[in-house]
Amino acid sequence: MFKVLKRNGNAKRGTFTTPHGTVQTPVFMNVGTLAAIKGAVSSMDLKDIGCQVELSNTYHLHLRPGDKTVYKLGGLHKFMNWDRPILTDSGGFQVFSLASMRKIKEEGVYFNSHIDGRKIFMGPEESMQIQSNLASTIAMAFDECVENPSPRDYVKRSVERTTRWLYRCKDEMARLNSMETTINKKQMLFGINQGGVYDDLRIEHAKEISKLNLDGYAIGGLAVGETHEEMYRIIEAVVPHLPEDKPIYLMGVGTPINILEGVERGVDFFDCVLPARNGRHGHVYTHSGKINLLNAKYELDGSPIEEGCECPTCKNYTKAYIRHLFKAKEMLAMRLCVLHNLYFYNKLMEDIRKALDEDKFSEFKQKTVEQFSENI
Amino acid sequence: MFKVLKRNGNAKRGTFTTPHGTVQTPVFMNVGTLAAIKGAVSSMDLKDIGCQVELSNTYHLHLRPGDKTVYKLGGLHKFMNWDRPILTDSGGFQVFSLASMRKIKEEGVYFNSHIDGRKIFMGPEESMQIQSNLASTIAMAFDECVENPSPRDYVKRSVERTTRWLYRCKDEMARLNSMETTINKKQMLFGINQGGVYDDLRIEHAKEISKLNLDGYAIGGLAVGETHEEMYRIIEAVVPHLPEDKPIYLMGVGTPINILEGVERGVDFFDCVLPARNGRHGHVYTHSGKINLLNAKYELDGSPIEEGCECPTCKNYTKAYIRHLFKAKEMLAMRLCVLHNLYFYNKLMEDIRKALDEDKFSEFKQKTVEQFSENI
Repeated sequence: MFKVLKRNGNAKRGTFTTPHGTVQTPVFMNVGTLAAIKGAVSSMDLKDIGCQVELSNTYHLHLRPGDKTVYKLGGLHKFMNWDRPILTDSGGFQVFSLASMRKIKEEGVYFNSHIDGRKIFMGPEESMQIQSNLASTIAMAFDECVENPSPRDYVKRSVERTTRWLYRCKDEMARLNSMETTINKKQMLFGINQGGVYDDLRIEHAKEISKLNLDGYAIGGLAVGETHEEMYRIIEAVVPHLPEDKPIYLMGVGTPINILEGVERGVDFFDCVLPARNGRHGHVYTHSGKINLLNAKYELDGSPIEEGCECPTCKNYTKAYIRHLFKAKEMLAMRLCVLHNLYFYNKLMEDIRKALDEDKFSEFKQKTVEQFSENI
Repeated sequence: MFKVLKRNGNAKRGTFTTPHGTVQTPVFMNVGTLAAIKGAVSSMDLKDIGCQVELSNTYHLHLRPGDKTVYKLGGLHKFMNWDRPILTDSGGFQVFSLASMRKIKEEGVYFNSHIDGRKIFMGPEESMQIQSNLASTIAMAFDECVENPSPRDYVKRSVERTTRWLYRCKDEMARLNSMETTINKKQMLFGINQGGVYDDLRIEHAKEISKLNLDGYAIGGLAVGETHEEMYRIIEAVVPHLPEDKPIYLMGVGTPINILEGVERGVDFFDCVLPARNGRHGHVYTHSGKINLLNAKYELDGSPIEEGCECPTCKNYTKAYIRHLFKAKEMLAMRLCVLHNLYFYNKLMEDIRKALDEDKFSEFKQKTVEQFSENI
């Protein structure tokens, strides 16, 4: 259940109650594609760095270790030892971005695995079944994610199919949640708004899916080719047509500035692989911009990534040490930077929530965007 | 200062006091070649898994990031944020095992870097200077490590040179420790016994180096080609000829059974890359033998690596989960297994010390060797 505690303009401070605990929103979900965060970061570490919701990938886990294996082991929470909420995406995005030999039909998508090439079929029912086996807290509806820009005609037909798929998702989840053998009988479902960069298609679709009274609504198909300005325009267009009493999740977004802009426009949930990926390459966040630890100027820098940062990395290690670890190809380098970057994102969200609590979001946003400069 | 608290036959329970705290012996040192433990394990983790002494490599750190860089950053302790004892090897072993185009002269060794091929010279003085820059707690003397078996004539001449080098090491360290600019002015020096598989050369050398009244004595040049039986025979031959009031360090050894056999013969310090390397390959230790987590039989195994193990891995994750991480090529797999294996070794030493305290080492050793079976 979603409860809005405060509004600052369109920005919301809220709580989202789930069978695995309450999430303080706005929230950034930390991505553990294969039930682990890339960079040797564990579920124990996620607790240390303030993660509220872990996000895993249906498509990836269906291939390895297999959702039936996870089911037999008691579901994702038990598998990865994480007792807070888990959101699983539907596999839709990965099927469209990773798989090959893709054929989209009314019943679903035929494609080849990116691991071993074997033929796989996934439709709304299959996606729900896999996510039910994984027993995540929140399941995402199975949708088609088109790249931007795509021809209007194609997008229109695709969105209509995605709506039909959403009805099938809802029915299938109701069936699965009522089964005795289901691990999480209270699995929640979020629908996904699509429509490319066409505001009218987006709005029409938002109205359609709002009728289904789902647990939350995502804006999908963004950060896939369009400009930031287009993205912000679409969020502004769509949000007023989604239910006021349900959380809004902007999928796969984004930079700290994207997040601030999203919150300002009414977004409650975010996720992105960027902070972990940047960390693995030695690109780390500070409040005055992103820095590259491999830069020679850090060779003798005995200060932490950011003074005053309370992350496990900054409390214990210097830029010079981490730079050495990268040069020496020590895995620890990646771990330390991923921990810092995820902490940075989680802390940013905490600061956003605090500003909202104090009715100061607008000032906070302006100040933070200026601090970050162009370099983030 | 070394203090023997108990003896069980030749096995000793002791304490070794250093400028960075007191070490309970027998002890297993955890290897962090490049000032980090391979497998994304940090100095903070080492505290969690009961490590007393960290071991880093002079040759490796001389190449990357450079000992002068570490010096400028305040020494190894500050660099890697570890306040307990650090032992640095002398570089001798790496020069002989890794470097190419090696030429041994009376003054030292000319060789090419294994990283970029550049020409390097290292002699006793250079090794001491590098270790003084690193500011480790214990420096190792610069020696020649010959493979086993090598011709007797060659070994005899090599050992004599290693003795002459030891005198130069001692003088150079005295000079360095007296310099105002030296970080650790109380750096300790361990000599290294050599002599291949020739008992008489070993004994003669042990007697020679005992005259120097060093802080400790190592047995080097073992686990480099000879059988376990030869190794045990040589330890038995050498130990009575080393000072009774100084700790004995068996370099680069070994398996849990090697360690039990070493302790029984009077060894106090051990180190080995084996537990971390095995961990990175999914080979993990249990009291009934070593197991391979990649084995298909663990796919649905919801139990920890070893029931009752108090390591961070066993307290939180299952064999099935870790096996999945290996199959999915997640770095976290290596980290979890390295943590377990190092904890296993550190705990084994704790159990050995407890048995010695209770005058039960002999029974403990017999029971443990039987438990381990042939599989460790």
